[in-house]
Amino acid sequence: MAVVTGSDDLRLVDHHCHSVVGHELDAAGFGALLTEAPAPAGDPWDSMLGLAVRRECAPVLDLPRHVPAADYLARRGELGVAEATRRLLAACGTDALLVDHGLRAGDLLGLDALAEAAGAPVAEVVRLEAVAEDVAAWGVAPGDYADALVEELDRRTRAAVACKSILAYRYGFDVPPHPPAPAEVAAAARHWLHDGGRLRHPVLLRHALWCGVDRGLPLQLHTGFGDPDEDLHRANPVLLTAFCRATAGTGTPVVLLHCYPYHREAAWLAQVFPHVWFDVGLASTYVGHRAAEVLAEALELAPFGKLLYSSDAFGLPELYLVAARAFRRAADRVLGGWHAEGEAGGDDVRRIAAMIAGGNARRLYGL
Amino acid sequence: MAVVTGSDDLRLVDHHCHSVVGHELDAAGFGALLTEAPAPAGDPWDSMLGLAVRRECAPVLDLPRHVPAADYLARRGELGVAEATRRLLAACGTDALLVDHGLRAGDLLGLDALAEAAGAPVAEVVRLEAVAEDVAAWGVAPGDYADALVEELDRRTRAAVACKSILAYRYGFDVPPHPPAPAEVAAAARHWLHDGGRLRHPVLLRHALWCGVDRGLPLQLHTGFGDPDEDLHRANPVLLTAFCRATAGTGTPVVLLHCYPYHREAAWLAQVFPHVWFDVGLASTYVGHRAAEVLAEALELAPFGKLLYSSDAFGLPELYLVAARAFRRAADRVLGGWHAEGEAGGDDVRRIAAMIAGGNARRLYGL
Amino acid sequence: MAVVTGSDDLRLVDHHCHSVVGHELDAAGFGALLTEAPAPAGDPWDSMLGLAVRRECAPVLDLPRHVPAADYLARRGELGVAEATRRLLAACGTDALLVDHGLRAGDLLGLDALAEAAGAPVAEVVRLEAVAEDVAAWGVAPGDYADALVEELDRRTRAAVACKSILAYRYGFDVPPHPPAPAEVAAAARHWLHDGGRLRHPVLLRHALWCGVDRGLPLQLHTGFGDPDEDLHRANPVLLTAFCRATAGTGTPVVLLHCYPYHREAAWLAQVFPHVWFDVGLASTYVGHRAAEVLAEALELAPFGKLLYSSDAFGLPELYLVAARAFRRAADRVLGGWHAEGEAGGDDVRRIAAMIAGGNARRLYGL
Repeated sequence: MAVVTGSDDLRLVDHHCHSVVGHELDAAGFGALLTEAPAPAGDPWDSMLGLAVRRECAPVLDLPRHVPAADYLARRGELGVAEATRRLLAACGTDALLVDHGLRAGDLLGLDALAEAAGAPVAEVVRLEAVAEDVAAWGVAPGDYADALVEELDRRTRAAVACKSILAYRYGFDVPPHPPAPAEVAAAARHWLHDGGRLRHPVLLRHALWCGVDRGLPLQLHTGFGDPDEDLHRANPVLLTAFCRATAGTGTPVVLLHCYPYHREAAWLAQVFPHVWFDVGLASTYVGHRAAEVLAEALELAPFGKLLYSSDAFGLPELYLVAARAFRRAADRVLGGWHAEGEAGGDDVRRIAAMIAGGNARRLYGL
Repeated sequence: MAVVTGSDDLRLVDHHCHSVVGHELDAAGFGALLTEAPAPAGDPWDSMLGLAVRRECAPVLDLPRHVPAADYLARRGELGVAEATRRLLAACGTDALLVDHGLRAGDLLGLDALAEAAGAPVAEVVRLEAVAEDVAAWGVAPGDYADALVEELDRRTRAAVACKSILAYRYGFDVPPHPPAPAEVAAAARHWLHDGGRLRHPVLLRHALWCGVDRGLPLQLHTGFGDPDEDLHRANPVLLTAFCRATAGTGTPVVLLHCYPYHREAAWLAQVFPHVWFDVGLASTYVGHRAAEVLAEALELAPFGKLLYSSDAFGLPELYLVAARAFRRAADRVLGGWHAEGEAGGDDVRRIAAMIAGGNARRLYGL
Repeated sequence: MAVVTGSDDLRLVDHHCHSVVGHELDAAGFGALLTEAPAPAGDPWDSMLGLAVRRECAPVLDLPRHVPAADYLARRGELGVAEATRRLLAACGTDALLVDHGLRAGDLLGLDALAEAAGAPVAEVVRLEAVAEDVAAWGVAPGDYADALVEELDRRTRAAVACKSILAYRYGFDVPPHPPAPAEVAAAARHWLHDGGRLRHPVLLRHALWCGVDRGLPLQLHTGFGDPDEDLHRANPVLLTAFCRATAGTGTPVVLLHCYPYHREAAWLAQVFPHVWFDVGLASTYVGHRAAEVLAEALELAPFGKLLYSSDAFGLPELYLVAARAFRRAADRVLGGWHAEGEAGGDDVRRIAAMIAGGNARRLYGL
């Protein structure tokens, strides 16, 4: 069916990912990046993702498919992290990477090094909470916090393509949908700047979110599954319905990331709000063979022009390749299946596949 | 597999739909009826529903499948709305239509005209909130509101087959499960009759709902996805569990409409409450090729005697046909699949298909 | 594909089930055990479960597949309940049954009789609420309730393999995640011991739950769908996220039972919390032919070492067999499908199937 969708040749825009680890990893270090758990229970390769790495990545490192994990890691060490990374990223067929570099940046390649390793341009997604924490760390009076944040965001987003909020991780979407009043912000800033620590105050998170809205760039939000810092049900994108109403007139696109297992609800938001977009990244990476089903569910209600490709890969170049291959195979199976069963013509299918692979992102981010 | 389920010959009862537009539509007007959005973002044909219209309806208007949208609309205009409507509705194979005519009735064919166009009898479903708003518009003292509503409902439901509540659109299911006290109703009526506008007061919505329960007719409730007036998560039918308990002894059947993406939860309600029924209409229309998966999910827990067919079509006769064809193909695939894999005998499969297509509705509504 | 997964030969550990009725059942009595409804509406055989009984169990009683229900019941009566039970349980291929005998034990075979009928060892799962109700029934002063419960649990769990909570049925998971203070427990005990009735007080339910945590045995929790005593949405296992965080350091494994239709959320919990395990029992029994889809969804995020097999069968030996066969067929279809499409090698597939069938349970419960 690859002939129908042309999926092997599709050029991807990965509209949300992170960078990769630049140093050698031992088995434990590699395994820790195969799960969202703080520490894996049992063998981290015993998962759809583990199977997918052995299937998709082993041949790129000159090994047979399904090679045991130990053999894979030995070969990876033999090639060295730089060569393995180069090979794996090159096999993705990605034209551009939009990178959130606000998480554990010190452990990962810088953006220029990533671009070189990937052989593709990299653009930055600015993580709002990371900027707020930098502003706080530099020392600012509570009454000046809001202005300082705006100023710093202004500086950092000049060359960026999007902002991103991790409200889901730090609190949840059960907050009022409108921006907080300045006095509330100042009062909350007083507490936070005194107490220190990560930004978790719901008023300041909401304030940072609306600073993001004000930038006018597409605003990405982590939604759906992630690590156990979050309460998954409070990260359901459908809880953003009132926020979508509140931002409908601002001109700022709202981009729901990951969404799984709430991607059917996200697809509804993307249908009923003209400014809402979404992806099923992260899920595609983790669910392996099931990426086709997740894609099919996402497309039940989603306008074809609103769904984006992403890997949400973090740390391991393997995750980029697993996501890219999972997407291509899912497109083959789902869209090729439409064609095979007479649901859509071949031209439609190829056009829709190209939209999701990259065309929608090019249009949204002005690439 | 159509031979197994006889799905091509199944006669349908469409237990929940609306009427069709009687005038010619331009491309924008047609496109606006292909989405639940207030205004489509991008090309409204770029969706499962758009593909399904091109696949299913084009041949009925003498065009090849998958014809471009512009060609489809040109041919539709050439035939004229009356002829196109007649052809599309006739191709549905529907024996009876139960119609909610309480939404934008002025834009649509009247019920007699619809029955003539469809070549099938039409029965009315009375929308409770529309009746309440009429009572309010005619002018009534707050203390007389409750009696006036009961009286008007009594009059309007005499020839009707069901009542319907849109509590999900106007507020959400997070309301107490019991009827409000008369004093509460009078106080709330005082506010509403003074302020005017749509009926959105949760006490009065709940009151109208229980007036519906008191009629004894099957009580339909919009649940699950719809337009962005609603908060989708507050329209989850599972939030009606306590209401189902409260109505279990009344003798009034409760009918959950659409339910998607919460149809698995609705199926549970239909299993554990003898008086609860449901459909996956609207979803079947919108999800195109995926109607089989949605039907299969709905049947995981649902007693076969509790699932109903509906199109929830509004405005476009195309939506009636897309729903009817999607249902027939889904029945083929799901029930025919049971047979092919030895899960059920041919007699069972044909009997179950006929129950869902129309038998259950005939029994529920006494048709 | 059975050759690939070896599913016909897989030995099962049923880590959560109940006992079976030891007396003859008439058609109504049998039908009442085919549904979670207090009383079935319509023919209880008209469901996926009914079809599955006719398909899987009829041949074991020397009848053709898909035999009408009346014929099945007649033959069952002819053989007698003891012989029918023996045949059906023997056909399961189960190595061990972990039994919650705290629900309607008087209607069911005792554990020794069950073990004899099943030809397999039986171990007990202690239902916390049942113990609390026994303590209350024996008469205890409110101030002594907590100590008395601990003492009785200590006695009853000595030979048991797990504790179990039915908080979902008695209240819901919307309770604080930490144990209540002793003074709260004493005050709540005062109310309950005075008023009598089932244990429904949220403070005492939470207290009993934490008494279970303190035992150190795996702690099973009913989650997801069940009978209409529960509010399904308040039984969503994802609401236990904070409880999972609170128990992460205790050394007590948390085992989420059933989970459907929230099994994707449960799988996330099992991935991100090293001490969390789950099953899709009950669902597998009820959904018949769709067990493969439910299993596939559960495995999207679940580490393969965290998913358990169970039947959650109650009353009818037919339910044990339906669950066992549904699991074997689902394993064939899902894992065999991975192999057929190159997602995993044959050795992997056989190893993973054996883990889920019984290996994971053996490890978790120390069998």
